[in-house]
Amino acid sequence: MELTLDNVFNFSAGPAALPKPVMKQAQADFIDWNGLGTSVMEISHRSKEFIQVADESEQDLRDLLNIPDNYKVLFCQGGARAQFAAVPLNLLGDATKATYIDAGYWAESAVTEASKYCEIDVFNAKTSIDGKAAVVPAKDWKIDPEAAYVHFCPNETIDGIEISELPQTDKPIVADMSSNILSRKIDVSQYGVIYAGAQKNIGPAGICIAIVRDDLLELANDVLPSILNYKVLAEKDSMFNTPPTYAWYLSGLVFKWLKAQGGVEAMELVNKEKAALLYDAIDSSAFYKNDVHTANRSRMNVPFQLAKPELDGKFLELADAAGLKSLKGHRAVGGMRASLYNAMSLEGVQALVSFMKDFEEKYA
Amino acid sequence: MELTLDNVFNFSAGPAALPKPVMKQAQADFIDWNGLGTSVMEISHRSKEFIQVADESEQDLRDLLNIPDNYKVLFCQGGARAQFAAVPLNLLGDATKATYIDAGYWAESAVTEASKYCEIDVFNAKTSIDGKAAVVPAKDWKIDPEAAYVHFCPNETIDGIEISELPQTDKPIVADMSSNILSRKIDVSQYGVIYAGAQKNIGPAGICIAIVRDDLLELANDVLPSILNYKVLAEKDSMFNTPPTYAWYLSGLVFKWLKAQGGVEAMELVNKEKAALLYDAIDSSAFYKNDVHTANRSRMNVPFQLAKPELDGKFLELADAAGLKSLKGHRAVGGMRASLYNAMSLEGVQALVSFMKDFEEKYA
Repeated sequence: MELTLDNVFNFSAGPAALPKPVMKQAQADFIDWNGLGTSVMEISHRSKEFIQVADESEQDLRDLLNIPDNYKVLFCQGGARAQFAAVPLNLLGDATKATYIDAGYWAESAVTEASKYCEIDVFNAKTSIDGKAAVVPAKDWKIDPEAAYVHFCPNETIDGIEISELPQTDKPIVADMSSNILSRKIDVSQYGVIYAGAQKNIGPAGICIAIVRDDLLELANDVLPSILNYKVLAEKDSMFNTPPTYAWYLSGLVFKWLKAQGGVEAMELVNKEKAALLYDAIDSSAFYKNDVHTANRSRMNVPFQLAKPELDGKFLELADAAGLKSLKGHRAVGGMRASLYNAMSLEGVQALVSFMKDFEEKYA
Repeated sequence: MELTLDNVFNFSAGPAALPKPVMKQAQADFIDWNGLGTSVMEISHRSKEFIQVADESEQDLRDLLNIPDNYKVLFCQGGARAQFAAVPLNLLGDATKATYIDAGYWAESAVTEASKYCEIDVFNAKTSIDGKAAVVPAKDWKIDPEAAYVHFCPNETIDGIEISELPQTDKPIVADMSSNILSRKIDVSQYGVIYAGAQKNIGPAGICIAIVRDDLLELANDVLPSILNYKVLAEKDSMFNTPPTYAWYLSGLVFKWLKAQGGVEAMELVNKEKAALLYDAIDSSAFYKNDVHTANRSRMNVPFQLAKPELDGKFLELADAAGLKSLKGHRAVGGMRASLYNAMSLEGVQALVSFMKDFEEKYA
């Protein structure tokens, strides 16, 4: 089979593949956008043309997630790691404590940063069922009565774990949805703050969405740099400073593409199908394995191991040659990882599963 | 004359035009970069391919500015406004005071943010000579003996003022070079920190360079978010979190283009010629005027007014139709502004001057 751009499939965990139609459109419009004779990245963020990009992208995101009117949508810089500091500095108010649910690497990274600003009550939600990694049910999560908010990360990219439950609390719930936003239906009204670095399900690296409930805008700490201050960003329509305009524009194209696909409901169906296809291939083979309990397997990030780890290099080399890119597992866990964000087509997962079967037949 | 992409000239103050050869190359490589079958924005920042982009861009910048080995080059997020907070939070150490030289809008914006973190000793360097805006000579700038550092902004985009002198002090000098970095020769060893948002002379909005002298890395305040911590960024080679990879890549292409043009020395010659051409056209006409004294006129941003301000709209409309884009002055001052960053060709300034003469003949 000859490799063309149409049968190269990129399983990168992030920065991840963007939808191919979006990339083709962006390429066509790269130098001469909207007939302006310049790129969209070469015009003022305060021009009427860019304001239209900004307004439409916000409205499209509101439509996709059905975001209630009492939530602000902010386009931030600094990625989710900036939010790790922004969340306590924006939300603590007079409180000195917050509860963090720990189910993996990213939840723990958020704890490390937030610990600089307050006492962190960590609830260890990691457990195992039948020798497989799993998450304690949400009804058993213990939340400190003095906590200003409860933070959790519903999809752990490295551990390959996804949580479909919510903390059961009347405190503001803060979710790091960097790796599963827009991949499944959520009820935004259940959250205080949702944030998500763009580079998995939204757009290129360098922009980060924060969806913030209005009543939480008044709590910011004095030492918070303005660039991370939700209230400042909200008052300035995310243009307190020059925003990353090109990343914002590309994110807007992705939102329009998602709407054209049928929105989040449609994506969720495809995402379920993609994940089922790959997990079934793994489970039905003695050569491949995944160490996460079925109840908590991520639809977005599927880590898997070979029965013969000495073949990892061979697997990756042949996969790459077959147009199946970036399947190497995270350096902390090794093995393989296939990330199946919205931009990954069912066809791509079918190609991967087919390759895995061939590889097993030849090398198992 | 028929308009083509080659005779459209974009005078935007920022986000500003990028060099046309850079944009053409980026467009050609947009979807299939280096034969990978994916875009450079769709690969891991930790891949060997991206690390090469990062390493080369740093080395090219070091070559262009002749950056000494005892300086770190950091690729940051959040723009210069993030640095307005990062500077005091990184540099104050045990001190409680810093001196800021005020010669315009951006210096004052830096003061506003820094005031959250310490006492700011502002030296008002604004003056006038023969009724024209000017800057007090650096030998007369008063610097507080207790200041941890001295901050100044050597080019004010809105006021159209440029300062070619340095504060005379043994304290670390911090310069916001967002709008004139790489446009003229500088001696980096004279500075403690140089920072610059990319969107004028470096690349697209969304990335910000900080050049930091090694000995200043140890002073960071405990409440500083890690994402703004120079030491953390230095230790992680600017990959503490996922960097804005596409903006970084484009910045790297600009650095290579600058080297191909002959480097900063060659750009400075062209920049002098471009500025002289435009200021001469203004000064030799009774219809156009610029309110900055010749000693402090910016080579990068040339604000000018018409003798009949009621013609501003007509001027902008006809200029736009002639392919001379984004000449509208900043909303704070009105009139016109032509930004002549490195990517603006001499040919573009010649086209503007020619248009201005035609306009004056018809409408003066």
